[in-house]
Amino acid sequence: MSPIQLFDGESSTFTYILAIPGCAEAVIIDPVEQQYERDLLQLQRLGLTLAYVLETHTHADHVTSAGRLRQHTGAKAAAPAGCGIAPADLQLQDGDVISFGAGETIRALHTPGHTAGSMSFVWRDNVFTGDTLLINGCGRTDFQSGSANDLYHSITQILFALPEHTWVWPGHDYQGFSVSSIGWEKQHNARAANRSREEFIQIMHDLNLPKPRLIDVAVPANQKLGLPDAQ
Amino acid sequence: MSPIQLFDGESSTFTYILAIPGCAEAVIIDPVEQQYERDLLQLQRLGLTLAYVLETHTHADHVTSAGRLRQHTGAKAAAPAGCGIAPADLQLQDGDVISFGAGETIRALHTPGHTAGSMSFVWRDNVFTGDTLLINGCGRTDFQSGSANDLYHSITQILFALPEHTWVWPGHDYQGFSVSSIGWEKQHNARAANRSREEFIQIMHDLNLPKPRLIDVAVPANQKLGLPDAQ
Repeated sequence: MSPIQLFDGESSTFTYILAIPGCAEAVIIDPVEQQYERDLLQLQRLGLTLAYVLETHTHADHVTSAGRLRQHTGAKAAAPAGCGIAPADLQLQDGDVISFGAGETIRALHTPGHTAGSMSFVWRDNVFTGDTLLINGCGRTDFQSGSANDLYHSITQILFALPEHTWVWPGHDYQGFSVSSIGWEKQHNARAANRSREEFIQIMHDLNLPKPRLIDVAVPANQKLGLPDAQ
Repeated sequence: MSPIQLFDGESSTFTYILAIPGCAEAVIIDPVEQQYERDLLQLQRLGLTLAYVLETHTHADHVTSAGRLRQHTGAKAAAPAGCGIAPADLQLQDGDVISFGAGETIRALHTPGHTAGSMSFVWRDNVFTGDTLLINGCGRTDFQSGSANDLYHSITQILFALPEHTWVWPGHDYQGFSVSSIGWEKQHNARAANRSREEFIQIMHDLNLPKPRLIDVAVPANQKLGLPDAQ
């Protein structure tokens, strides 16, 4: 089974709906505030009820619709424990398992580096890597408790240890790609494949990226699930 | 299992890759010439070999990359028999079944109306409807052997007869949606749900759409699988 992949063009963010045809319960990962109406309609059109809203981390480039989706659908909000997302119903720890539908399970993997709390989620033969591992790239590590040292470990020791046929669904793509595999990224990822820890840290250090435009708004909003008063 | 959905922004066309993690053989439906490199890379990143390139119909709004994909990968090209796509390896008839991977099957459904030859393809709990049934809409019927009368029959008697939980993957979407279900479209489709044949034909007649910009180039090119000399 693979997820339904939705795209927000403004922030190049992927949102995922995990569901099985004929089964009512679904999970959504990393929903975007501006796409709230679209995502609700997408769920309705498939006759889905939302069991959980999952966040891979505290996003710096867009505001989540997790709080609004929870209010509207009754879904539980689940977020990594180390992300400061206080109003989440579940504070996920490494190895925690979320169940939905008819025996579907999602396993949380703590993959710090883009942020200290970042998690990836494994569902069947898929891994949702948020901003930890991107297609032929990875998330930045120069703000918001990022650490190139931790990211190297998360990518090469945790994610690359998954079976090679696992499909990789990233939090963003900026070039029109949809999905990759652990096998391909392990062999070819421009930043992490066949690199030493020192090389990787140097590459990340040399990126010199501008500060994300929305970070000062998005991070505090996302720590309240996107709701100004943490309803 | 659901497909990998890829999007061409220029023509708002969806291309689909049908594959199972851990299984090498895949099928692609309605690939777009301009996305040839992306699609090849997408296949490589998942370790996939292409068994078939399928066309739902002779497109009027973009040129297919079916011929180039066939040349490069050795895949067979399969097209509906009634579409004038002479160089295709398989001329599909209603009810034909294509097999790939470890026991995966795709069933061809002749669903005329957008064009006389148009087909939909059923794979597991999914139907790929090309320009026959769109999300909350349908393909136009005012050119290229289109028939509102036939389209009404194809949508209401053939597609709406599929199980309601079947997911509907259209050939285009212009509003950011990805997927719908037979159940939802049967209840809510703006053009076809709960309409008489006469109402539907009137709606289609009144659309008064401009001629597609690329039709005079795209149709003859697509009848040669997108290759100028039908290699």
